[in-house]
Amino acid sequence: MSGDLGPRVAIAATHDFLAQFPDVFVLLVGDRDQLTSLIATYKLSESRIELIHAADRVSMDDDSLVALRQKKDSSMWIALDLVSKGSADACVSAGNTGALLAMTKHLIKTYPSIDRPAICKAMPAEKGSSLLLDLGANINCTPEQLHQFALMGSVLRGTNKNSNSLPSVALLNIGKEAHKGTDVLQATQTLLQQESRLNYVGFVEANTIFLGRVDVIVCDGFHGNIALKASEGAARFIVKKITNHLRSNWILKFLSFCLSPLLKSLVDEIDPAAYNGASFLGLQKVVIKSHGSANKKAFLNSLIVAREQITEQVPARIQQLFS
Amino acid sequence: MSGDLGPRVAIAATHDFLAQFPDVFVLLVGDRDQLTSLIATYKLSESRIELIHAADRVSMDDDSLVALRQKKDSSMWIALDLVSKGSADACVSAGNTGALLAMTKHLIKTYPSIDRPAICKAMPAEKGSSLLLDLGANINCTPEQLHQFALMGSVLRGTNKNSNSLPSVALLNIGKEAHKGTDVLQATQTLLQQESRLNYVGFVEANTIFLGRVDVIVCDGFHGNIALKASEGAARFIVKKITNHLRSNWILKFLSFCLSPLLKSLVDEIDPAAYNGASFLGLQKVVIKSHGSANKKAFLNSLIVAREQITEQVPARIQQLFS
Repeated sequence: MSGDLGPRVAIAATHDFLAQFPDVFVLLVGDRDQLTSLIATYKLSESRIELIHAADRVSMDDDSLVALRQKKDSSMWIALDLVSKGSADACVSAGNTGALLAMTKHLIKTYPSIDRPAICKAMPAEKGSSLLLDLGANINCTPEQLHQFALMGSVLRGTNKNSNSLPSVALLNIGKEAHKGTDVLQATQTLLQQESRLNYVGFVEANTIFLGRVDVIVCDGFHGNIALKASEGAARFIVKKITNHLRSNWILKFLSFCLSPLLKSLVDEIDPAAYNGASFLGLQKVVIKSHGSANKKAFLNSLIVAREQITEQVPARIQQLFS
Repeated sequence: MSGDLGPRVAIAATHDFLAQFPDVFVLLVGDRDQLTSLIATYKLSESRIELIHAADRVSMDDDSLVALRQKKDSSMWIALDLVSKGSADACVSAGNTGALLAMTKHLIKTYPSIDRPAICKAMPAEKGSSLLLDLGANINCTPEQLHQFALMGSVLRGTNKNSNSLPSVALLNIGKEAHKGTDVLQATQTLLQQESRLNYVGFVEANTIFLGRVDVIVCDGFHGNIALKASEGAARFIVKKITNHLRSNWILKFLSFCLSPLLKSLVDEIDPAAYNGASFLGLQKVVIKSHGSANKKAFLNSLIVAREQITEQVPARIQQLFS
């Protein structure tokens, strides 16, 4: 276990996770002494956990390829190795994203017909949520890879949807008009229009992410990361403006007392630090990335997302669609 | 005159512009009958305006290249032609962005050493503002073009800055680390690091836009447009959430009465519909794009931005830096 806040948050979240779901068993991978003490502090039921010692850890600053080569005793490597060997059904980590992605690709592998895993996450929206992928795993993508992302996102959203209709899938672009965008987007559009396994609805602009009118929005990792970070920045900016304004006089100070839980929950909802549980899709097993600075509630959400994907057999469903 | 709201907003804003700045003279280009009636309604001083009839107009749905070929009697074409011939110092338009860009490139031209104009605008930030460019004029950019954008942005910010130090300039990327990003960004970084006319500070992520730690953030038009639209979407989403919450009970309803001007001004501040006046930089004259759905205050801001750029001789300063 690593992450900006160390294993304390993960153990606290595990406590709540075990209480909420009687069907789960958790392998805790990390420094034995540190974990033993935390397990005692949070009174985890010993019959539903197993402690697995790791002598090393990947730090948040480690270069991903250096970590891949040199950190085979790290908690991250050992946890992924347990999943790869079938000793665990899913891995949840709040550690270094680049290293997690590199180790995951090495240890768990994608299905043969899938080139690369994509990072996918539900974004809050006025109406429900939109799945956005890729969020940074793949800087440059071919039309064929974006096509694969569309199919994977559609499967994931399909498992969460009550209706039998196919989820709507759109491509992120800088205009809605069919002639707009790069050559890659134009070629991807042609592929998606011909794809009977998808309900492709066309191009959308980045503000659509927060409307919830489309179930799945597909883009390359560069565009997804910019959309995610820009919206995080705008959200923090607005909440800070409101908070400062609320401190400016005593009537507003009183209001801020009433509003502060709302403001906090709004930031939580849109902030990647808390709106949590990004899936690495396209892999043969479930791997969930929790934000490095996730709090207990946020880490718990990542555990819940992992459990859902195991229960819904998301990897197998993706394989099925591609075979 | 076109734009989503027609010439009414532009005429109302012109009234305030004339009142605020005794040194300006405004050429109003559009349908004679419509403008005559609006000039009377808003009591514009006839000695400080001139009405120029245009038989046609570019609609918001017109394809930019079709408009360029077929709309030579439009208000947009005539206004840009007046600027190109020196009869006016700047053109401000709330019309179709693609058509405005196409006609501008055709009629006004960039300086010889500048490949393409870039759309640039000040984004609100916790501390002051950040200039972001390009916002959609150029989908794919070479390192040389991004280098030009950096220089142009630095000139524009330099004219607004009180200190003599060079404005700080960063490149938009998906990580701060120097090894991150696309080949184009890597090559651009090398160019900017060697550039003595710039204070290049490295890569920034998209959330930095709203911090105001960097004066100028450079990116291609695709990335800039995604950052702009994603932040617009997130801002609207949050304000809507807060507004809905404030309607949920009577105490909060009272609070919302106190907060509604603040919420509105926050949306205005971050929303491109109102935070207004995007510059087409790199041209031999001043061209300012007002948002199609800009209100009076927002359109007035575009007029003020245009006047500032004339007074500060922004085009000439850019030419000087490039010669």
